[in-house]
Amino acid sequence: MSVPSQLYRPSLALLTDYYELTMAYAAWKSGAAAKQASFTLSFRSNPFHGGFTVAAGLEHAMDLVSHLRFSDEDLAWLATQAGADGAPLFEAGFLDALRTLEVDVDVDAVPEGTVVFPTEPLVRVTGPVIPCMLLETPLLAVVNFQTLVATKAARVCLAAGGDPVLEFGLRRAQGIDGGLAASRAAYVGGCAATSNTLAARLYGIPGKGTHAHSWVMLHAGEREAFLEYAKAMPANCVFLVDTYGSLDGIRNAVEVGRWLREHGHDLLGVRLDSGDLAWLSIQARRMLDEAGFPRAAVYASNELDEIIIQSLKDQGARIGVWGVGTRLVTGQDDGALGGVYKLGAVRASADARWEHRVKVSEQAAKTTIPGLLQVRRFSGPQGFLADVVYDELTGLPASPVMVDPLDPTRRRQLAEGTPAEDLLVPVFRGGRQVYRPPPLDAARARTQAQLARFHAGVKRFVNPHQFPVGLERELHDLRTELVLAARGAPI
Amino acid sequence: MSVPSQLYRPSLALLTDYYELTMAYAAWKSGAAAKQASFTLSFRSNPFHGGFTVAAGLEHAMDLVSHLRFSDEDLAWLATQAGADGAPLFEAGFLDALRTLEVDVDVDAVPEGTVVFPTEPLVRVTGPVIPCMLLETPLLAVVNFQTLVATKAARVCLAAGGDPVLEFGLRRAQGIDGGLAASRAAYVGGCAATSNTLAARLYGIPGKGTHAHSWVMLHAGEREAFLEYAKAMPANCVFLVDTYGSLDGIRNAVEVGRWLREHGHDLLGVRLDSGDLAWLSIQARRMLDEAGFPRAAVYASNELDEIIIQSLKDQGARIGVWGVGTRLVTGQDDGALGGVYKLGAVRASADARWEHRVKVSEQAAKTTIPGLLQVRRFSGPQGFLADVVYDELTGLPASPVMVDPLDPTRRRQLAEGTPAEDLLVPVFRGGRQVYRPPPLDAARARTQAQLARFHAGVKRFVNPHQFPVGLERELHDLRTELVLAARGAPI
Repeated sequence: MSVPSQLYRPSLALLTDYYELTMAYAAWKSGAAAKQASFTLSFRSNPFHGGFTVAAGLEHAMDLVSHLRFSDEDLAWLATQAGADGAPLFEAGFLDALRTLEVDVDVDAVPEGTVVFPTEPLVRVTGPVIPCMLLETPLLAVVNFQTLVATKAARVCLAAGGDPVLEFGLRRAQGIDGGLAASRAAYVGGCAATSNTLAARLYGIPGKGTHAHSWVMLHAGEREAFLEYAKAMPANCVFLVDTYGSLDGIRNAVEVGRWLREHGHDLLGVRLDSGDLAWLSIQARRMLDEAGFPRAAVYASNELDEIIIQSLKDQGARIGVWGVGTRLVTGQDDGALGGVYKLGAVRASADARWEHRVKVSEQAAKTTIPGLLQVRRFSGPQGFLADVVYDELTGLPASPVMVDPLDPTRRRQLAEGTPAEDLLVPVFRGGRQVYRPPPLDAARARTQAQLARFHAGVKRFVNPHQFPVGLERELHDLRTELVLAARGAPI
Repeated sequence: MSVPSQLYRPSLALLTDYYELTMAYAAWKSGAAAKQASFTLSFRSNPFHGGFTVAAGLEHAMDLVSHLRFSDEDLAWLATQAGADGAPLFEAGFLDALRTLEVDVDVDAVPEGTVVFPTEPLVRVTGPVIPCMLLETPLLAVVNFQTLVATKAARVCLAAGGDPVLEFGLRRAQGIDGGLAASRAAYVGGCAATSNTLAARLYGIPGKGTHAHSWVMLHAGEREAFLEYAKAMPANCVFLVDTYGSLDGIRNAVEVGRWLREHGHDLLGVRLDSGDLAWLSIQARRMLDEAGFPRAAVYASNELDEIIIQSLKDQGARIGVWGVGTRLVTGQDDGALGGVYKLGAVRASADARWEHRVKVSEQAAKTTIPGLLQVRRFSGPQGFLADVVYDELTGLPASPVMVDPLDPTRRRQLAEGTPAEDLLVPVFRGGRQVYRPPPLDAARARTQAQLARFHAGVKRFVNPHQFPVGLERELHDLRTELVLAARGAPI
């Protein structure tokens, strides 16, 4: 529910790069529109110098595929677009073709909450070239960002080691939907609740919040402010204690906690928002315990992320609930996943044979992988063993050899019968949706279930272990040939 | 046009932090709702280690103020919210009060495209506490992000030194509106066009684009691909040359450029998207010139920002048009402006006297400034001289003394009669809009006109000059007294 087509009033068909439309026009005009293409969405490195990535955003991406329809306003506006010569850029016939565009594509994708790695396909779109092109930008925008934030959230939750993490980021989010989509993805990644009330309503995420410094400043004194709040909502008291000084604030919170107890309620906790959180949390815990409030939690916030949380834990901080905002919802220090959408194969028509394609680059990691790509994950009794990217046109042998794409001398053979599953599942077939996205709670549970099956080394923050991901040998060989041919190099 | 209330279907009244609603409830329940408050939105440091900031987002912020209305769905959902005891968090009477909420606030703000500095008020909201509280999060979300991106765009355009900068960021933007709002703010900051077609339509920004690698890969060869594109849209040809190798790509572009010329059209340019952009652009320029295409521009893209553009310029790169994406629209390396919304004064009712308020912090920059804040910018013949933040309750003397808030021994007196203007203009009075936002082109022009009046030192990227911003002396003294009193320190 509350996918983009339900959130936005304007049609989102124009939510795409301008060049997708000029290319679509050129394809229509030149006859290339009759061709079919297979594109793969993938990324080149795990964000945050980490060892893993959590896929998210598929439900919104699906919505953009199934609602790609140009409105009359869209088409009227496109008709006003002019080239450098001042003449209309698009012929009327093309705009008619857009009006009746059939988005009859096949889409395969990894379910949200799946742990994924660089070079692996996350989404594959196969079909007539025009819809494949038009979908490039919106799919990248949605999947790049939600995957970035889900990954960050998973890391923050790993650092918190089971303590609840509340996502508090809306005020620093990148735009309105930057906030809404971040709240959704943070929940997929493992957060327990959000402060974003609209996200709570739209996505069914628990809403949480304490109070601001301004509540204290509105009153003559801090104790009076806490007491008035306690009288108003006695079952929801987490007092922010640092408006004038945290230790005095904790004392005032304890006093009002006693008033709450006399009136049949519990003080839920105190929130620290500045100062030395390690030291203050130890003081707060001791003060609360000594005053007879062992169940009141110490909340902490203030520019937290997984590295600071881990450091606070290492220092013995007694924080029970973590409020994480800016750096979570804006995915710092990266800010973007850097996913790309690359052509892997083309054929003259739906009946013709696929031809493999590769884009060459001076940076090895930017050379693309040809084919209709899928990835199979192999498991052992201790957890996941390795992922093998393969071309569905050739399939995977019973005992595949995987080749490290960045160092082809690193190879490994997987034994026949090793338990395995393909990560991409069919999502659309001929434009018809064949996958039903699970409830958000299920995606959130999938993240945790997946992470549990990876070795701890993959999940650590400093110099993480690189989970083995390889190209199936035949695919590797084909890619090498195509690159050598494109470079005109001696073979 | 195309402000948030027109873009989104759901009411945006819940686009606020959960604690704004619990505080509003506590205010309603305790009687504090009768009080009036004055809040100031400001930030603590210029983003990107820079010397200035460009304000943006006001038009969207105004829209959120004038459309703050809870829908029946919002209220029905709020009625389902429960506290720790499982009982409803909000009484029905409060939900009725929200249903008929009057947002009768006064808002003052700096126009979009105004150059601003840390500690200065960007937006001031004064009125009954409940609407003041509810507006905190949405105003921060909109103004923080658009200001961040407008600032980044202004820096990128300064680096480009008058060359057109195209914003190419949608695919890496933070959510759908993260993309739309970024395109808007990038234009305010000085970009010439966007690749985001929907932003182009909604905001009237010129739309621009070339083509993708996939266009080349769809064809048997690069030259064929260029030629088919040229036949389809001969007046719009900027060829992306690095699919297989940039130098061969330029040669193919030149050949198709000749075909274009034979058919009465101009080759607009070639685009470099990888490799050594400095060296390649010099080669490209030479090859285009030698082939008789001196007016075909060299476009460049690939993870550019103001630092890389400056470096390329320093290396003699012959790039004429810059495509800037990820780092612009996500505001890297910062990702967020870090604006805050702090209470400066409170009064018991609309007729009562204002009482000043201050929040204390161990970090001096986080201690707030009391009062109903305004900022006056003084000018000399060479440009802007200094900004003085003052309290409208006391006003500004004819020859004001300004005090550096972080080093109170740094003081300066401004001569009587120095030309000056207040930066905040009235936007709402009693909830009625009294300011009409200018067209986006005018906001964009304001950015350039403002920047032109600052010394070059303020605009440089490395160790920029700090433009003088001070507190009016009486305000400084009052603040000091309030902080000392809050700390219980000896005076």
